[in-house]
Amino acid sequence: MKNFIFENPTRILFGEGMLDRLPDQIQSAGKRILLVYGMDSIRRSGLYDRLLALLEQAGKEVFELAGIAPNPRRERVAQGIEICRREKIDFILAAGGGSVIDTAKAVAAGSLYAGDYWQDLYREGKSISSALPLGVILTMPATGSEMNGITVLVDTENKIKYSYNNVLLNPRFSILEPRLTMTMPKEQVIYGTIDMMSHVFEQYFSPPDHDNLTEDLAEAILRNIRVNLDRALLDLNDYQSRSNLMWCGTMAYNGLLRNGKDGDFQAHRIEYALSGTYDIPHGAGMAIVHPNLLYHIRKKAAHKLARLAVRVFDIPALDRTEEELALAAVTAIRDYFTACGAPARLSDLGIGPEGLEEVAGKVNLIRTGYYPLEYEDVLAILRMSV
Amino acid sequence: MKNFIFENPTRILFGEGMLDRLPDQIQSAGKRILLVYGMDSIRRSGLYDRLLALLEQAGKEVFELAGIAPNPRRERVAQGIEICRREKIDFILAAGGGSVIDTAKAVAAGSLYAGDYWQDLYREGKSISSALPLGVILTMPATGSEMNGITVLVDTENKIKYSYNNVLLNPRFSILEPRLTMTMPKEQVIYGTIDMMSHVFEQYFSPPDHDNLTEDLAEAILRNIRVNLDRALLDLNDYQSRSNLMWCGTMAYNGLLRNGKDGDFQAHRIEYALSGTYDIPHGAGMAIVHPNLLYHIRKKAAHKLARLAVRVFDIPALDRTEEELALAAVTAIRDYFTACGAPARLSDLGIGPEGLEEVAGKVNLIRTGYYPLEYEDVLAILRMSV
Repeated sequence: MKNFIFENPTRILFGEGMLDRLPDQIQSAGKRILLVYGMDSIRRSGLYDRLLALLEQAGKEVFELAGIAPNPRRERVAQGIEICRREKIDFILAAGGGSVIDTAKAVAAGSLYAGDYWQDLYREGKSISSALPLGVILTMPATGSEMNGITVLVDTENKIKYSYNNVLLNPRFSILEPRLTMTMPKEQVIYGTIDMMSHVFEQYFSPPDHDNLTEDLAEAILRNIRVNLDRALLDLNDYQSRSNLMWCGTMAYNGLLRNGKDGDFQAHRIEYALSGTYDIPHGAGMAIVHPNLLYHIRKKAAHKLARLAVRVFDIPALDRTEEELALAAVTAIRDYFTACGAPARLSDLGIGPEGLEEVAGKVNLIRTGYYPLEYEDVLAILRMSV
Repeated sequence: MKNFIFENPTRILFGEGMLDRLPDQIQSAGKRILLVYGMDSIRRSGLYDRLLALLEQAGKEVFELAGIAPNPRRERVAQGIEICRREKIDFILAAGGGSVIDTAKAVAAGSLYAGDYWQDLYREGKSISSALPLGVILTMPATGSEMNGITVLVDTENKIKYSYNNVLLNPRFSILEPRLTMTMPKEQVIYGTIDMMSHVFEQYFSPPDHDNLTEDLAEAILRNIRVNLDRALLDLNDYQSRSNLMWCGTMAYNGLLRNGKDGDFQAHRIEYALSGTYDIPHGAGMAIVHPNLLYHIRKKAAHKLARLAVRVFDIPALDRTEEELALAAVTAIRDYFTACGAPARLSDLGIGPEGLEEVAGKVNLIRTGYYPLEYEDVLAILRMSV
């Protein structure tokens, strides 16, 4: 196994009624709380009122940063930092999905950072020595942000997303009440689940291949997602499948699947340029880009795609060659995404072939995994995706 | 998925050369370190000298609690607590396997506990509010103690083991250098790996069965252990298989496999009475007891044993009934342990049928899992095991 360092201090409170433990969790935090949330959904669902009551019960004074949209933008972070500094905020509480949590993390880091947080952290990846403590109430499982130190933001000037990762941005606690996710529209359930699967792929399809546990864990998560997404799509109110999917999303991107692996993340980089440019849902972008990227690298990743075909998609090996199995795996992934109801082409989202060179030019090449991509590769994948 | 709370703050440093990071890891700890270790093996392997040099480099003053034997005893804990209080120890460093780490944890808790730590914690399970911080250098993978808050000790008066669990006893960091495990005798590699598999079984064979990820993770670990133990037994110096097994041992018992599951642990309770009485290696006791316990409960656990047969031991379902598959799984487990070189019967360890009633009477019944055991069940399992 390749060397690794693993650390994940986030406490997870999972299940029905866990929200009632919020006062206990923030008891030792200071008095002044910044509540970060999204659009109207937490007000409509009644979560907003429950949160205010629980925070009042805990004797906290609440400030708000509201209206965080999908594909979150730096402008809102600046407002959050300004509130934290002016109001001497002690603790940030994020109630929402990945966009809300990632914005809250940027505020947590930026508030205590003396320099230009955007340039130094998101653009140059510099380390931080402190951050405001953060807690999470998760309402949309997808990004895994509830149990990692990763934050992704859109640079509105350049229309591309950048990410930053530091263990100081791991939430102190995350409350995962599956019932809070039941109000998600079907489309978001599908996109969120594809985002989880993409996180697994980004780590699974990368060297080294040492027969280590991490590969088996990745396959376990993919198999479990298949079982439970099928069941959830038959009945979106089915608690077991929805709760199982919620935990899969957290486990897919909490660092465990990276142990002993290089990781790839080139599909994410391509999607960051796409959703930065066109403001499409991240999961929809991944559903389109990831199968095409895997098709493009299918020869160099043949051994691993063949393993996935047999172990996750139950395709019998029979007398098929490795390359045949690899192609079958790519087809199975694409077919599965389509069968779930995800878009297969950019044109399904109203995006045409014009401007793809510009999008490809914005992709922050990291040249990782089995097949490090150059500009021409990215352009070929994008053209396949129209 | 059943409700759960998961928290595991231990930082893992895994791989070659990680021991050199020890000074960084204890930099912020106080100056006075208690080094806890076992018998002569760390002196013979050179680890002892390396540790002293690294601790000197970090500017620490070192005190020692040495000679911790397998199946660790309370008497040594008392000595450790006395040293910690007298010498105002700031940080405990445990270098060894489960016995050393578990003793160090007892010292960490007991030193700051005003009452009778044995009675209150190990016997009555009371909570603690503080413990001395602890770091680990793991030399024998098996118990998972390097990434949990669990400690198991022998009560020499009553000749039985008791355990205690608290997140304050999670090591702050654990250094896992697979090469440090290369000096283990083959027998210990086998016993250690069977202990890991037993930890997985104790969690897997328990309700509820909600198709959740935890089941798939358990199967992933068991499959990976099989692949890598086979390879390790062909060549004990094979780095890949030994390092993979080391990580499996940590993952088998760091809390992840308990999420959404009740857990069983009745096989462990029986073995605690056995190894408390006869001072046999814990892994050897588990190799004997666990297949017999599973045989005893095979009808109530049939659905899960059948699933294990197919998913872990690749037994084709064909037209076999669930009960047939369940029996096949029990046989496969027993045969696998025997093929690896583990004892199958207590008589292999020189233990006869006399006194089994007394052992059964000492077992701390917890009545968990698919089939809560009574005294008669335990006695039947022990008699099967002679």
